[in-house]
Formats: sequence, C-alpha cells, structure tokens
Amino acid sequence: MDELYMQLALDAAWHNQLLTYPNPSVGAVLLHEGRLLCVVAHKKAGDSHAEVLALLDGYEALSNQKVDFDKNNSHLAHQFLLSLPQGFFGKCDMYVTLEPCNHDGKTPSCASMLAKLKLKSITIATLDPIKSHSGGAKRIEDVGTALYAGLLESKAKELLEPFVIWQKRAFVLFKLAQTTNGKITGGTISSLVSRTHSHKLRARVSKLVIGGSTVRIDRPTLDCRLSGDMPPDVFIYTKGDVDQSIPLFDIKDRDVAFGDKLDFLSKPSFILIEGGEGMLEAFKEKIDWLLVYQSPNIDNEKKSYNTNLRLKHLYASPMGEDLMIWSKRI
Amino acid sequence: MDELYMQLALDAAWHNQLLTYPNPSVGAVLLHEGRLLCVVAHKKAGDSHAEVLALLDGYEALSNQKVDFDKNNSHLAHQFLLSLPQGFFGKCDMYVTLEPCNHDGKTPSCASMLAKLKLKSITIATLDPIKSHSGGAKRIEDVGTALYAGLLESKAKELLEPFVIWQKRAFVLFKLAQTTNGKITGGTISSLVSRTHSHKLRARVSKLVIGGSTVRIDRPTLDCRLSGDMPPDVFIYTKGDVDQSIPLFDIKDRDVAFGDKLDFLSKPSFILIEGGEGMLEAFKEKIDWLLVYQSPNIDNEKKSYNTNLRLKHLYASPMGEDLMIWSKRI
Repeated sequence: MDELYMQLALDAAWHNQLLTYPNPSVGAVLLHEGRLLCVVAHKKAGDSHAEVLALLDGYEALSNQKVDFDKNNSHLAHQFLLSLPQGFFGKCDMYVTLEPCNHDGKTPSCASMLAKLKLKSITIATLDPIKSHSGGAKRIEDVGTALYAGLLESKAKELLEPFVIWQKRAFVLFKLAQTTNGKITGGTISSLVSRTHSHKLRARVSKLVIGGSTVRIDRPTLDCRLSGDMPPDVFIYTKGDVDQSIPLFDIKDRDVAFGDKLDFLSKPSFILIEGGEGMLEAFKEKIDWLLVYQSPNIDNEKKSYNTNLRLKHLYASPMGEDLMIWSKRI
Repeated sequence: MDELYMQLALDAAWHNQLLTYPNPSVGAVLLHEGRLLCVVAHKKAGDSHAEVLALLDGYEALSNQKVDFDKNNSHLAHQFLLSLPQGFFGKCDMYVTLEPCNHDGKTPSCASMLAKLKLKSITIATLDPIKSHSGGAKRIEDVGTALYAGLLESKAKELLEPFVIWQKRAFVLFKLAQTTNGKITGGTISSLVSRTHSHKLRARVSKLVIGGSTVRIDRPTLDCRLSGDMPPDVFIYTKGDVDQSIPLFDIKDRDVAFGDKLDFLSKPSFILIEGGEGMLEAFKEKIDWLLVYQSPNIDNEKKSYNTNLRLKHLYASPMGEDLMIWSKRI
C-alpha cells in the first residue's frame, strides 16, 4: 500500500502543479495506526506547506474538532501544532512527495517542526534538490522517527522538474487548447473550468509570451479575469512593430515588451507561451513542458496544427469537461 | 475518505473496462478497522468476482499467509472463504462499484457468500441494473451488515454503461490510435503496450468491424498475436467485393463476412470498430463509445482526421507511453 499512498500524494501535488511557483508543488498523506486521515497539497508560495496541512487535517480527524484559524497561515499553523500535547502524532505515518524543508523562509521549517512532533514514520519520495534547503530528512531521523526515502522517486522527480529548472534558468511551458482531433483554432475550445485554470497559471508566471500575429488578429486582453487575479506581464514575440491600441496595452500595472530577443529565458523564472502552430515551431527547441487542455469533441471545421516534437506524457487528469495533459520534451 | 476508497475501486475497474465482457467491469476495496488492505478488480468472465478477490487479498494481508490455489478459480475461492473461522471479516469494510450478484452463474453468488461472512459494512456505488440479478444488497443487509448504496453512483453508472447496453443490443466501441495533434495514419502510432491492450480487446469482441479500403490497402491480419489470444470474427464494411487472398481470410476458426448490412448491431453483443476518418464518418450515428490511444508526440508528416462528434470524456489513464482515453457520444 506504500506506493498507493505516495501516488495519492503525487496526484494531489499534480493538481496544483506550477500554481505554487516559485515553490515546488508538494503533496502529503497522513495515516494514524494505518488509517488514512487526509490527502493534501501545498496551494501557493507563502501558504502552509503540504506537511503542515496534512497535520492540521489529521488533528481535525483525530480530535473531531475544527481548528479556528486559517490553515494556510503557516505561522499560526506551526504555533498551533507545536502546542499540541507531546506525542499527539506519535502513531502517525506521513507520505510526502518531497523532503520536508530544513530552512526558515516565508514559512517556518517543516523539518524542525516534524522533529519536535516525532511521528512514527515519514516516507519521502525524493530528497530536496537544493543543497542549502536539504538535511530535513536527517534532522527528522535523528529524533527517532522512522524515515524512508526514494519511494516512487522517478515520478516525484518529474513532478519536481519545473522547480529544478527555474533555479537556474526560465522554465518554459507551452499551453494549447485543442479538440480530441487536434483542432486549435476557430472560437473557444476548452471548458470554462480549463480557461479558469489557465488564468490561474497566467497569474503565477514571470512573463506571458505570445506571438505577434495572434496579437494583431485576436487583439486579446491576456488578463486573468476568470480567476480574479492580477494580469501577467506580456512579451510579444515579433520581428515587426506592434499596434499599441490593442487592449492588452491598456491594462494597469502590466509591463508589455515586444521583439525577437529572448535573453530573458536565461533568467530563473516561469515563462508561459500561448500560441498556435507558428509559436510552437518558433519555440520548439526552447519548450520544457507542454500543457494541453483537450476537449472531448471531434471537430470538422476548426484548424489542425503541425510540427515535430518528441514528447513524454507526465500526467493527465480531468479539468472540467476537458482533459489536462502534461508532457515534457525529450 | 469514503469517496476516495470508492474512486480507487472505480479506477481498478476502469483498468479492466470491456475486458470482462459479457460481465461488467467491477472494482472493490477492502479495509480492516480503517486500514486499507487491497484494491482489486474482476479480470474476466468466469473468473472470481471483485468481491472475492478483495476478500482473498484481505485474508492474505490479515493472516500474513498466501492462499495455495488460483484466486481466479471462483469455486475454490468461495469454498475457502466460507471455511474461514466465523467472524474473520467482522471488522472489515468493503467498497464495491456494483451491487454483489445475487444469482449463481459461472461463479457462485457473491451476495450469498457475503451474507455468510458478515462484514461490518459494504458500500455499493450502484445497484445491479439487471432485475433478475439484483437483491444482493438486501440479502447482505438482512444479516446485519451495514449497507450503503449510491456513493459516486453517476461515475459507477458510466463505468457500467457498456454492460447495460449489451443486454439489449450491440455495444459499439470505435478505436483510434493518434498522436497528440490528432494524426492517425502513416505507420505505427501507439506504443507496444497500447497495441497489446487493443489485441486483448479484440479477443473479447463479438465481431471486429473494419472498412473495405483499409482491408484493400493495408491487407491486415487482424489477429491477437500480441496478447496470444484467438483472433476475432471480422466484418468488412464495404459496398463492393473483397479480395479473399488477403491474409485475414487465412486465419483458422475465424468467421469473415462482408457487406453493408448492419443488422447484427441489433443483437446483444460487443462490436469493435477499427478505422479512420471514413469509418468514423460512416458509423458516427452508431458509435456508443470512443477509445483513443494517444501518443505523446506531435507529428508533422502523418495525416489528421475530420468529422463532427459531440463526446463526453469518461476516463483517462496511462497505457505504456500513451494515454488511453475513453469517451462517449452525447
């Protein structure tokens, strides 16, 4: 059952993939005497980590009482968890997709808290790839908690790949919405749920890159109205000039740049490209991952796209009426 | 957690979807004092049902001993389970996607066995749609086992739809292998794992339907060599004559028919159609479900397909390097 529990933690983390930028997406599962208490994932940078959310949900399940503060307030959460009677989680086993953090950043260190709470066991899928943050596993093991590392490690490393990449350069995600037969143009293709998810992603990115012809033809606003977030900065990839009467230029607090110089890709960041065949072709050597929102329909009227990209499927899950399919360039 | 356990049972059943023909695909989960023991699914008609497999795996987990017979031999399995000490499963909770069968067919009745084993609780996603097989839930409840029905019922009904359809007429599945950008022609597209799965499906069907032009151009054998099963009967959909020197005619114990009369679709059965754009277009009013093996790649050279089909995604899961995507016509 170990693999099943870790897979549940991975599933939860994939649900929030990239939305936690610049943090990694992490999932966790908590059991008490073999009984599954909860499956959770970190939601966004600054909010409580997955381990903390799992312990709070675990507390609620074990005590049959609700906590009276915002679970995503990591300082209140740590304070609360550390105030529980000694040994409260002593019969608990945790599965977490990444080694608990060993440094105090926006949130207090999870490893330090877990070393105090002394769970029965903690199973980690993969160790922290950032040397300065690692050491959490050892710290937890040193207090007598049984510690296992490396369960479903290759899956956890795939989940973690964007985080590893954006430590050193831009992580480049190309987003497409298509029908089942690969049609991408001619009106709205994906469901409202998918489009809302894509606006949440836009709200997280360092820069949204879009092609000059899309801007000229569609005159998009490229905001995050569906998720109610602030609009992203935009880079229009074009060799020519751009008509600045286009609505996307009118949005407050947004930086818009254009040109064909892509030096910004060398900077640690999260870059989202939205486009069709032309942009796929132009960026095919620079794309790290592809995200496809695939509608169930087969459509005759819309237009297909062509290029050559060798990819590997990473994860797929329902997104409203669509499928959300993640793949990486190989 | 109830929904999570039932979802695990549904996931297991989707894994064997249609391979259990003419039985429904059923999944089950067993817990002991809240601890998850196993997640299983029925494999093929005549083999042990999901409930039986769950109890056998549960026995092994609880006793730390292996059973010494073939778990898929339902008669031995029932005999063994009924020989266990009274109350052995008394602290167990089962989640099963379909009401346990209440009649003795190829396998003994699960409801009768479960009524003797007296579990703590049994949660059923949906009741048996066949009136003459139903009543299992009541039989189990009557002995004092807590019985819950209707958890994730709409999902369970989707899983069960082929079974309901093939009670009264042919269930028609259209199979496609495509790249991510919807290309379907020009050499092998799907992975060996997907192709092996499609051969397993072929081995279960009442008839494999294929277009006359595919037969003339590709001269396929349409066997099940990858799964080592017997080849299916074939119906070639064509208005013209067919060259009987084509290899598929040479296979022993296979019935081959051709023509454009589709009366056989009114007969309770399982029909698999393999084809491209022409067959999709020809059968678009007759297809119940679509099965797409989708490779991760985006390909420039292969050919796309066009038609208009409104579909609903039902389930998606990895199949080797590909995704296996089930959808239904709406």
